[in-house]
Amino acid sequence: MPIPDAPAPAPADVIVVGGGVVGLATAWRLRAAGASVMVVDPDPGHGAGWAAAGMLAPVGEAHFGEEPLVLLALAAAARWPSFAAELTDETGLPTGLLSTGSLLIGADPSDRASIEDVLAFQRSLGLDAERLTATEARSAEPLLAPSVAGGARFPGDHQVDNRLVLAALRAACGGEGVSFVADRVARVDVEADRVTGVTLEGGATLAGSVVVVAAGSWSGTLGGLPDDVRPPVRPVHGVTLRLRAGDGTPWLGRVVRGLVHGRHCYVVPRADGSLVVGASAEERGFSDAVPARAVHDLLADARTLLPVVDEYELTEATAGLRPTTPDNAPVLGPAGPTGLVLATGHYRNGFLLAPLTADAVAGWVTGAPVPEVARSFGVGRFATGPVPAAP
Amino acid sequence: MPIPDAPAPAPADVIVVGGGVVGLATAWRLRAAGASVMVVDPDPGHGAGWAAAGMLAPVGEAHFGEEPLVLLALAAAARWPSFAAELTDETGLPTGLLSTGSLLIGADPSDRASIEDVLAFQRSLGLDAERLTATEARSAEPLLAPSVAGGARFPGDHQVDNRLVLAALRAACGGEGVSFVADRVARVDVEADRVTGVTLEGGATLAGSVVVVAAGSWSGTLGGLPDDVRPPVRPVHGVTLRLRAGDGTPWLGRVVRGLVHGRHCYVVPRADGSLVVGASAEERGFSDAVPARAVHDLLADARTLLPVVDEYELTEATAGLRPTTPDNAPVLGPAGPTGLVLATGHYRNGFLLAPLTADAVAGWVTGAPVPEVARSFGVGRFATGPVPAAP
Repeated sequence: MPIPDAPAPAPADVIVVGGGVVGLATAWRLRAAGASVMVVDPDPGHGAGWAAAGMLAPVGEAHFGEEPLVLLALAAAARWPSFAAELTDETGLPTGLLSTGSLLIGADPSDRASIEDVLAFQRSLGLDAERLTATEARSAEPLLAPSVAGGARFPGDHQVDNRLVLAALRAACGGEGVSFVADRVARVDVEADRVTGVTLEGGATLAGSVVVVAAGSWSGTLGGLPDDVRPPVRPVHGVTLRLRAGDGTPWLGRVVRGLVHGRHCYVVPRADGSLVVGASAEERGFSDAVPARAVHDLLADARTLLPVVDEYELTEATAGLRPTTPDNAPVLGPAGPTGLVLATGHYRNGFLLAPLTADAVAGWVTGAPVPEVARSFGVGRFATGPVPAAP
Repeated sequence: MPIPDAPAPAPADVIVVGGGVVGLATAWRLRAAGASVMVVDPDPGHGAGWAAAGMLAPVGEAHFGEEPLVLLALAAAARWPSFAAELTDETGLPTGLLSTGSLLIGADPSDRASIEDVLAFQRSLGLDAERLTATEARSAEPLLAPSVAGGARFPGDHQVDNRLVLAALRAACGGEGVSFVADRVARVDVEADRVTGVTLEGGATLAGSVVVVAAGSWSGTLGGLPDDVRPPVRPVHGVTLRLRAGDGTPWLGRVVRGLVHGRHCYVVPRADGSLVVGASAEERGFSDAVPARAVHDLLADARTLLPVVDEYELTEATAGLRPTTPDNAPVLGPAGPTGLVLATGHYRNGFLLAPLTADAVAGWVTGAPVPEVARSFGVGRFATGPVPAAP
């Protein structure tokens, strides 16, 4: 038996693979429920969630054919105010939660017609979405270009500051005694149909009786997962730009989502007057490069909607890899060997869905109640053979 | 008499205020000529020269009404091959000198007409500039957009890699024993009409019998300079973008300068396939922010000329402050109190003019021959009263 170089960490009750917003929120909840928790991530908080804008948009992100996801998103949005309050209470850190609603604006009549179609769908679901003429839109947000064609208002779609939330979650986890291992997981270890821990890329192993897979776009690449529970996650590349207001530049008052000659973009104002402009969507494998084309198009579209963007300063261009599934909804819940729990594939909705996902995973692991709405998102729904029984 | 905290540095023969390309090249030349030299700069090599593209463009930058500057630029260009060779011999470091010429391309017929006017001027001065039809332009550089309207070729306008040159100059200075003081100069100290050194922002003083002002845009803000020798330098803000070729993206073969619907831009390919795209020009005081508008316009103009830009990745957006004078030409030579030498105001031509400026300053300081062409750029030319005698 080889003599180890350093004492191995004590076995954890739970190993969370991935320290993004979902992994951190889950670790925090599990630790608060009494479990010993270890998060494994080479650079926690600096994946897709670092690039994200932090929109909480159950209505604005409601798309045709994604009705189950809309229900999940609405339930998740309802949890945010108390989640944010609890996080701030515990850490003293802000989350940047701003409840100013959002607008969806069409740049030309064809964009507006597309928005009308989406609006009809959203209202058919009973969602809180209000049609706006061009005049009403400009009265709601005076910085909109005179040329916009109108759009919609979503009074219940809000935002958090993604980086503040990540920092607060890190602090909350640290304060509760969650351990962090700065490494990559190569493989989930399974013996006799029970997980026993994980093997890191360097070859070391960590022992644990529960493994939560919250590795975003990399969730499907982990070794050791049986094929029928491997989450069908792939990366969708997105770029966000950070802009800073110049001296005397007027500040945007609320989130503006846009459809600009058929292209989507959004402009999210922070409490300090800065803006997050996003987001392109492209399949580029695991590259996190920032395509010049995406930067151009985002700036072009943002200034078409909001000419004031010209007065801002570009401080950052960042790419993130949103973890996407075939139906754009996350993969949640126990699957396969005892002790394996999936919490991945949150695509455009990582921040929105994180509190609900964390509560659901904590429920599955500890036996506490699991929000019913989360039970429809098991990996079994992608099975091509006979559908397995629900967990 | 207060007891100093640390021993004061030995008095230098020469204090160079500013560690940009001009200050570093000058320090290197002065040290090689036997002087003890001290360079004072809080962050040498990271001012305007860091943002620059490194074009050596005596013809492409030849503008109406700037005939004296054109002569200086041609003389400077002629010095570059031996300067670069010597720098590489001494340090073992590359300069990225590429002698592939450059193109000037008009995006539309009106741009092309403007280029024709410039061409007529350039050829009236006997400069090596060749007219190109659209077909000839695309045959010279196949990556040009099919829509371009034609332009010109400047076979003698080359480039260096600005950051490689700065690194090599730092190494050359270090190797020769030039001292570096990481601080800002508040004031040039003068006694009985002789310079005695400089006072740093923190209040410390450095003694030296010669002070070379090579502080770029800040040259006019130094204390202690008599009004009639204060260089009339102001900052012109410019943004450059760095782009990296994607896998399989074709590489640009030569510098492409463009006139795109009346706006200037350039695209400079490096030996590794990366591009430098520049440069906006705006008066924004001493701000080094990167305006969103400039990034948009540079990308829009570059992709209008070269659609392949869409396949590149944006790695950096940097602003620099080009030191400009009323006639766009530098301010060179001894002025005012004995021991004061000006070497600033190089505007768009810092890299091009640095070797000649360095030789000229070394001549003025050590008594070696001064290139005759440099003698026309004394600060006295801006005097509003009687013109002082040439130095």
